[in-house]
Amino acid sequence: MDSQGRIQLAVIGAGYWGPNLVRNFTACGSAVVTHLCDLDLSRAQKVAAPYPAIATTNNLEGVLASDIDAVAIATPVRTHFPLAKQALLAGKHVLVEKPLAWSVAEGQELVALAEAQGRVLMCDHTFCYTGAVRKMREVVQSGELGDVLYFDSVRVNLGLIQSDVNVLWDLAPHDLSILDYVLPADLRPVAVSAQGVDAVGTGYASVAYLTLHFGRPVIANVHANWLSPVKVRMTLVGGTKKMLVWDDNEPSEKVRIYDKGIEIGDQDPNRIRVSYRHGACFIPVLDSTEALARMAREFCSAITGGRAPETDGAAGLRVLKALEAANRSLQAGGVRVELA
Amino acid sequence: MDSQGRIQLAVIGAGYWGPNLVRNFTACGSAVVTHLCDLDLSRAQKVAAPYPAIATTNNLEGVLASDIDAVAIATPVRTHFPLAKQALLAGKHVLVEKPLAWSVAEGQELVALAEAQGRVLMCDHTFCYTGAVRKMREVVQSGELGDVLYFDSVRVNLGLIQSDVNVLWDLAPHDLSILDYVLPADLRPVAVSAQGVDAVGTGYASVAYLTLHFGRPVIANVHANWLSPVKVRMTLVGGTKKMLVWDDNEPSEKVRIYDKGIEIGDQDPNRIRVSYRHGACFIPVLDSTEALARMAREFCSAITGGRAPETDGAAGLRVLKALEAANRSLQAGGVRVELA
Amino acid sequence: MDSQGRIQLAVIGAGYWGPNLVRNFTACGSAVVTHLCDLDLSRAQKVAAPYPAIATTNNLEGVLASDIDAVAIATPVRTHFPLAKQALLAGKHVLVEKPLAWSVAEGQELVALAEAQGRVLMCDHTFCYTGAVRKMREVVQSGELGDVLYFDSVRVNLGLIQSDVNVLWDLAPHDLSILDYVLPADLRPVAVSAQGVDAVGTGYASVAYLTLHFGRPVIANVHANWLSPVKVRMTLVGGTKKMLVWDDNEPSEKVRIYDKGIEIGDQDPNRIRVSYRHGACFIPVLDSTEALARMAREFCSAITGGRAPETDGAAGLRVLKALEAANRSLQAGGVRVELA
Amino acid sequence: MDSQGRIQLAVIGAGYWGPNLVRNFTACGSAVVTHLCDLDLSRAQKVAAPYPAIATTNNLEGVLASDIDAVAIATPVRTHFPLAKQALLAGKHVLVEKPLAWSVAEGQELVALAEAQGRVLMCDHTFCYTGAVRKMREVVQSGELGDVLYFDSVRVNLGLIQSDVNVLWDLAPHDLSILDYVLPADLRPVAVSAQGVDAVGTGYASVAYLTLHFGRPVIANVHANWLSPVKVRMTLVGGTKKMLVWDDNEPSEKVRIYDKGIEIGDQDPNRIRVSYRHGACFIPVLDSTEALARMAREFCSAITGGRAPETDGAAGLRVLKALEAANRSLQAGGVRVELA
Repeated sequence: MDSQGRIQLAVIGAGYWGPNLVRNFTACGSAVVTHLCDLDLSRAQKVAAPYPAIATTNNLEGVLASDIDAVAIATPVRTHFPLAKQALLAGKHVLVEKPLAWSVAEGQELVALAEAQGRVLMCDHTFCYTGAVRKMREVVQSGELGDVLYFDSVRVNLGLIQSDVNVLWDLAPHDLSILDYVLPADLRPVAVSAQGVDAVGTGYASVAYLTLHFGRPVIANVHANWLSPVKVRMTLVGGTKKMLVWDDNEPSEKVRIYDKGIEIGDQDPNRIRVSYRHGACFIPVLDSTEALARMAREFCSAITGGRAPETDGAAGLRVLKALEAANRSLQAGGVRVELA
Repeated sequence: MDSQGRIQLAVIGAGYWGPNLVRNFTACGSAVVTHLCDLDLSRAQKVAAPYPAIATTNNLEGVLASDIDAVAIATPVRTHFPLAKQALLAGKHVLVEKPLAWSVAEGQELVALAEAQGRVLMCDHTFCYTGAVRKMREVVQSGELGDVLYFDSVRVNLGLIQSDVNVLWDLAPHDLSILDYVLPADLRPVAVSAQGVDAVGTGYASVAYLTLHFGRPVIANVHANWLSPVKVRMTLVGGTKKMLVWDDNEPSEKVRIYDKGIEIGDQDPNRIRVSYRHGACFIPVLDSTEALARMAREFCSAITGGRAPETDGAAGLRVLKALEAANRSLQAGGVRVELA
Repeated sequence: MDSQGRIQLAVIGAGYWGPNLVRNFTACGSAVVTHLCDLDLSRAQKVAAPYPAIATTNNLEGVLASDIDAVAIATPVRTHFPLAKQALLAGKHVLVEKPLAWSVAEGQELVALAEAQGRVLMCDHTFCYTGAVRKMREVVQSGELGDVLYFDSVRVNLGLIQSDVNVLWDLAPHDLSILDYVLPADLRPVAVSAQGVDAVGTGYASVAYLTLHFGRPVIANVHANWLSPVKVRMTLVGGTKKMLVWDDNEPSEKVRIYDKGIEIGDQDPNRIRVSYRHGACFIPVLDSTEALARMAREFCSAITGGRAPETDGAAGLRVLKALEAANRSLQAGGVRVELA
Repeated sequence: MDSQGRIQLAVIGAGYWGPNLVRNFTACGSAVVTHLCDLDLSRAQKVAAPYPAIATTNNLEGVLASDIDAVAIATPVRTHFPLAKQALLAGKHVLVEKPLAWSVAEGQELVALAEAQGRVLMCDHTFCYTGAVRKMREVVQSGELGDVLYFDSVRVNLGLIQSDVNVLWDLAPHDLSILDYVLPADLRPVAVSAQGVDAVGTGYASVAYLTLHFGRPVIANVHANWLSPVKVRMTLVGGTKKMLVWDDNEPSEKVRIYDKGIEIGDQDPNRIRVSYRHGACFIPVLDSTEALARMAREFCSAITGGRAPETDGAAGLRVLKALEAANRSLQAGGVRVELA
């Protein structure tokens, strides 16, 4: 902490996402960004130009040897594990971009290490800090929807094709982290199946479908696609009482709650009596705080409060397990892979 | 044929769809509806009231013994096979509502029988006669999209839950018949996988995902759902040159063709060079002829011309094979089932 | 009345709208359509074919001399007045398509005559019988919106250009009758201004804007346009407490009620303190009864109950006054014309 | 110019818009921002923090006495005239935010002064530098639409109510400048009419309709409204050959060109023969350059090239004339006011 009780934080990585972390931690009030660290020093200097108080460096060891409290890691996925491990070993609290690591084994080691060190390990599942997703969580967990029956998410676009991962590793972490955050804690996927196609010859699927199984009559599905001419970001959540639609393309009316449903009467062997409820739709006002600002505050607050953050290492690990299982399912032609 | 050379046709079934067949065959000019046959005679009489020339009856044998040329069958699915078989054996041309029959074995017998009898067997895949689907076929088969990479269809609604089939048997015949009609004849699915959940306890899946495999890097997927609070009817078709979106909820601008795509340059082991093409969108004018009117004309024209109709028994059988394989996949937890 | 106490009604005019009246009065239960009358007898016979009990004729005098109770007039606008007058003089109740007559003078004579004869005179303002407009009326008149501040309606399309009237006479009767029905009875327009252009050389404006003034700080505006490439049917109603949007292009979510508004604090000569309220949106379920069915029932019920119907002759006359004043304003270059 | 031939520019006003000007002129390459000037020096310092090379000051005289080439004025409207006049008298090129000045008299004086001094006077009509508006201009001026018949623009929102102007002065400058830019130079409004209501008691209209007349059968209309619960930004342009829709709410498909129209055949005194053309829709790709970046380049390029910029003082003056005439029309109850 500095003299004003603010967390001293180094941002590692000055690429696409790092500047956003610098800006939001600087603005959040309870932290002060002391260093911006990048192997390419000139890139760090350019990003830090508007912040005279931030030291730029390409010497991570020096940063970790200083008395900073925490690091925020926004580097390529393959480097998450070594960097986070090094920082935890140096006694720092760690925030990592999604996905947490490159493999479940790595993720497990980080979670265990953070626990052993008594340090906060948090994964930046940014969507979980948006007003829309928080409203979804509130509605689902309050029981307003009744029991959740399905969760369907479409995330397609003419996207930036990644050359070293398939489309699920690029896009589905969003849906998986949202699902993990929104559903009740007793409703966790137990297995996955995945289908996909390497449509452009990169060696990885660029169009894929991921199904999650829950050990009871509930299903979740994610359609991830880098080759869609139109951008669709739409999630449906069906419950026994109500249903919810989240359309992230909508500028403000993103979440709609429908008082609609189906009721099955006492079953007659010959005929099922179904009644439909077509009620009103309610579009709540969403908190418009910038997601990253709220995420930054949560990291600081977890450190100060000595508690686990909302999207902690365990959450990041659950997402990683689903992704790794999805890869195995894809390679095995879509068979069901348990998340044991 | 009657004295004016018009096909004499009996409609069997006066329930939900039968009146539409009566109306369209009456209006099409090249047929005359002579009988409307239903086990519930009063229902037939009510439907036929505005058509004094149509005889109503519950005696199918009598109808088949008359000199009519053809029958159109709009009865529950389980009865398609016995009724169509009886009519073919009586030497009549046969139009059947979708799906063609209750099983692949039944469908195969009908196709073989029609061939043996030299009669037209047609399946009423109504969507294939809409202006939107015909435009899609024209665009795909002209090569304008390049090679097809994927076909994704969402067909969800707060739907009429069926008590004796799962949601795929209810909704996916539309998508499967469209896919069969739109894709080039050398691009046929070779296997399917299906995931689903019996969310409301009817004993059948009410939310399901069907994936089709093609023996090359192409994928198709259908999301069928009776429990969605909103109606979505959207199909994406991605090609190597262009991409297409069909949104059936749009009142008139249903099909959009995007001059968008991705090109992969020569591959370097370390880095893939991807270039994006973000071109214009073109919304063609669609033929607005009523689909059923065109379907009725096609049945008559195939009979008169002694040729196979566009959606013949073989097409109906291909759809049936995919549905039956989907059932096996669903029951086996989503494994891939070959369409051999 | 017939022996079952049903109103005996003749429909006059078998053109575009007449068949809808025949169908709905036949189905409504409290009326029986006895005659369908048209100068072109063969047209009447074709429309009446499915209804064996309806007599077809081109002899209006004979119809009016019979013991029928009421007539429904669906003929060209110029004939509304002579036909309605003749029917009222014969002691019949009268329903007339919109607009009520060709001039205010004619309309006034009809209203006076109906009163003198003690007969119901109703104008078929069909939109006032839709679920959407009835919900709007309920919301506005319950005070939920607070005081109405403005009413803005856009009704544009690539429309059927009329050769004998301007676009306001064709389209604005919808908006004017809705406004008359929805707003509180103490909020009536006192003057109009209209701007327009004869863009295609028919001699009449094909694009026009009609403004209604209310003698207090309230404004209403109608944009009517036959030359729009897209169909827009959207009405905004702003109140001091809430605001409402009716988008008739939406298949089901037509009316949205926004808990949004602006509050002006105590005024300081130099600065106005404005506070904004951005609350939730509520989309009510609308009654889905067919509008014409409800209109037919209302006509019958008004006759039976000896009371004025919802859209009575007086309402039709108010619409007519605004239209006639709009014409004068158009001809005088947009000056304000009082509705005295 | 500085030693690298870049225009030396001072930005005056560090409020809402000033920072955008600083950022864009800094980035444009052909200018260097030397000063940021604001009466509130601390505000200027805060904005200039990321730009160490920019001097901050509240001493405008000193800035104008320096050897800078140009100023960009982003201050309250009432100060545009004195500041721009002072800068022109000091021999500087001047860019002013819209509207150009507080009155036509002021605007005329500025235009005359710029001409006398041989300096560039430009009005920042930002929308004219967007890809959408430039495409509209290209389409209209190429003759693709045929002759323009109407221009209809809706610009409504729950907006920031201004306390010293009516809603037309706040919002309509956008539409008026777009109209001025898009329409052919021989199609200029000759008169205006305006209707409005002071719905919230600020002393100025908060809902208003502005009609522009052209001395031939062409009409333009702007609906400006601060009290709409939904944001609508939609412009329709109808031509004799084609029609165009610009929906600025669309994230990317903002401009659609419809091959639709109406043709009037030879006129028969009794019946007009109208034929409709319902052709395809084309959605062009728009240049996605940031509008302000293009505007900044245009100002620099006009200075360097010694030519008038696209949205020069004369264009700003035409917008101002329409606004001032609209005020007179509003005050006189909507009468037509000539733009002589």
